[in-house]
Amino acid sequence: MKRRDFLRTGVAASAALALPQGLVAAAPGDIPASKNSTYERRQRQEPFHLGMAGYTFRHFDIDQTLAFMKRLDVHYLCIKDFHLPLDASAEQIAAFKQKLAEAGVVGYGVGPIYMKSEAEVDRAFAYAKRVGVSLLVGVPNYELLDYAEKAVKQYDIRLAIHLHGPDMKVQGSDRFLYPDATDIWENIKDRDPRMGMCLDIGHNLRYGSDSLRDLKRYHTRVFDMHMKDVTGNTKADRSVELGRGVIDFSEYVRLMRKVGYVGSVSLEYEKDMKDPFFGICESVGYFRGICAATK
Amino acid sequence: MKRRDFLRTGVAASAALALPQGLVAAAPGDIPASKNSTYERRQRQEPFHLGMAGYTFRHFDIDQTLAFMKRLDVHYLCIKDFHLPLDASAEQIAAFKQKLAEAGVVGYGVGPIYMKSEAEVDRAFAYAKRVGVSLLVGVPNYELLDYAEKAVKQYDIRLAIHLHGPDMKVQGSDRFLYPDATDIWENIKDRDPRMGMCLDIGHNLRYGSDSLRDLKRYHTRVFDMHMKDVTGNTKADRSVELGRGVIDFSEYVRLMRKVGYVGSVSLEYEKDMKDPFFGICESVGYFRGICAATK
Repeated sequence: MKRRDFLRTGVAASAALALPQGLVAAAPGDIPASKNSTYERRQRQEPFHLGMAGYTFRHFDIDQTLAFMKRLDVHYLCIKDFHLPLDASAEQIAAFKQKLAEAGVVGYGVGPIYMKSEAEVDRAFAYAKRVGVSLLVGVPNYELLDYAEKAVKQYDIRLAIHLHGPDMKVQGSDRFLYPDATDIWENIKDRDPRMGMCLDIGHNLRYGSDSLRDLKRYHTRVFDMHMKDVTGNTKADRSVELGRGVIDFSEYVRLMRKVGYVGSVSLEYEKDMKDPFFGICESVGYFRGICAATK
Repeated sequence: MKRRDFLRTGVAASAALALPQGLVAAAPGDIPASKNSTYERRQRQEPFHLGMAGYTFRHFDIDQTLAFMKRLDVHYLCIKDFHLPLDASAEQIAAFKQKLAEAGVVGYGVGPIYMKSEAEVDRAFAYAKRVGVSLLVGVPNYELLDYAEKAVKQYDIRLAIHLHGPDMKVQGSDRFLYPDATDIWENIKDRDPRMGMCLDIGHNLRYGSDSLRDLKRYHTRVFDMHMKDVTGNTKADRSVELGRGVIDFSEYVRLMRKVGYVGSVSLEYEKDMKDPFFGICESVGYFRGICAATK
C-alpha cells in the first residue's frame, strides 16, 4: 500500500467517526493525514458543526459545490432548492443524495424556503420529508404560523424560521418580515418546541440587534445559524469575509460553547457571489482559527 | 461622493496608518469599509505583521502575486529572486517597487538566498541593499559564516538564516544544512546581534524540534518566521493548510505575544503549489482567527 493510499484509508476511517453513521459513502477527500492531528481531534470534539448554507453557491451547480466543499473539508450543507428543486422526484432526490454521500457531505436540512400559502407550507414540509431531513429552514408568512405549526407536528420536522434583517417587507405592508431574532422569538415562543429560528448573525446586526444577547436569550430555539460578517449595524452595511467586519467571533463562539449549542453553524457568504471561493476559504479558516483558540 | 468612493477613501487613510509611511502609493484594495471595524483595529494593534513568503508563489509572476495579495488584504512580502532577479538593474528594481507600492504591499525583506561562495555572499548583500531592505533571509554555507558576519556589519543588514528541517544536506556530507533553530542558534549566538534566524515552524517540527520551546529560547534572534502547518514531526510529513496539521497555533501566537515578537510572520504555503490560492486563503483566515481570539 502506497503512503498516499494509506493516508486516504486512515482519513476515511477517522472521518467516518465524525459524521453520522450511514451517511458517509466515501472518504471526505483531502483532509489531514494523521488520526492524531489536532485538526481531527478538534473536529471530533466540537459540539456544533460547521456547514455551508446552500445559498452561498447560487451561481454554481451541485457538482461544483461539492467538489469545492470536499477540498475545503466542510461536510454539512443546507440544501437550497436551486440545487434540488421542490418538485424533485424520488429518483432525482436519490441521485442527489448519492452525490452528497460520495463527497462525504451531509445534507443536514433544506432551505430557506419561502411559504406564502398553505399549499406552499404543505409543499415545503413534504419536500423536507422526501429529502429525509428533520430540519426545514423556512419563512412562512405570519398568518400561516398556525398552519405551519400543524405541519411541524404532523411531519415531526423542526422549522427554523430565517430572519432577514432590514431587507424584506411583508407584502403590501411597511412591516419587516422576520427582521430579527426577537421578532421570531415573539412569534414562536408559545408554540411547539420544534418551532425555532435560523439565527443569521449578520442580518440580525444589520437590523441593529445584538446576536450575542439574542443567542443568550433564545438559544433553546436556535436550530441553525447563518454565519457571516458585516461592515456595521445598518441596512447599508454589507457582507464581508469573516474577521474583516465588526462581529466579534471569539465572543460569539465562546457563548455558543457556554449555552451548549449543538446545531449547525453554516457560512452564508454573500460577497462576490459569482467568485466567492477565496472569501469562503478565508472565512472558513477564520472560523476554525477562532474555534481552535477558544477551546 | 458615492458611498463606495467614500469607503475607499476611508480605507486608504486608515491603512496608510498601519503601513510604513512612504511605502503606500495606493489604497490597499478591497479591505473593510469602516475605520471602526474590529478587523482594522486588530490589524493596527498587532505587534507583528502577517506576510507572505515569496516562495509560496513560485509558479506565479509578481502581477498575479500582488493581485492576489491585494484581494486577500495581506501587505507584506518577502521578495524571492524568481520575482526580482539577483542581478536586477536599478531600473528593474524601481519598476518592481512601484508595482508593490501600487498594490499597497511592503517588500519587507529578500530571500531565501543560498550562498555557497564569498562572491555569492557579496552578491546577496549588494542585492538586498539595492532593493532597499534591511532583512536578508539567507543560507550561507557554514564555512562562510565569518564572511557573512563581515557583510552584515558592512551593510548593516540583518541576516535571518533559514532552517530547512530534514530536507537538505551539506554538499558532500551527511550533515544537515541548518536543520533546526538550535543549529542556527549555536552557529550565531556569539556573533553580531544582527545575525539571527527565520524560524520555519513546519520544517523545525519535521526535524523533531519543538517551535514553542525554540521561540522561547531564541526569540531575541528570530527576525522572521515561516508559518506553515504540517501533518507530523517526521521528514515524511507534509505541509497542509493551517489548522489541518498538528501545530497548535493558539499556543504559538500566545507565545509570540508573550515574548514580544515584533517581526513578520509569513505564510510559506507548500501544498498544491500550482493551485495554492484556496489553501492560502484558508490559512490566512485561520491565522487571523487565532490572532483575534488570543488577544
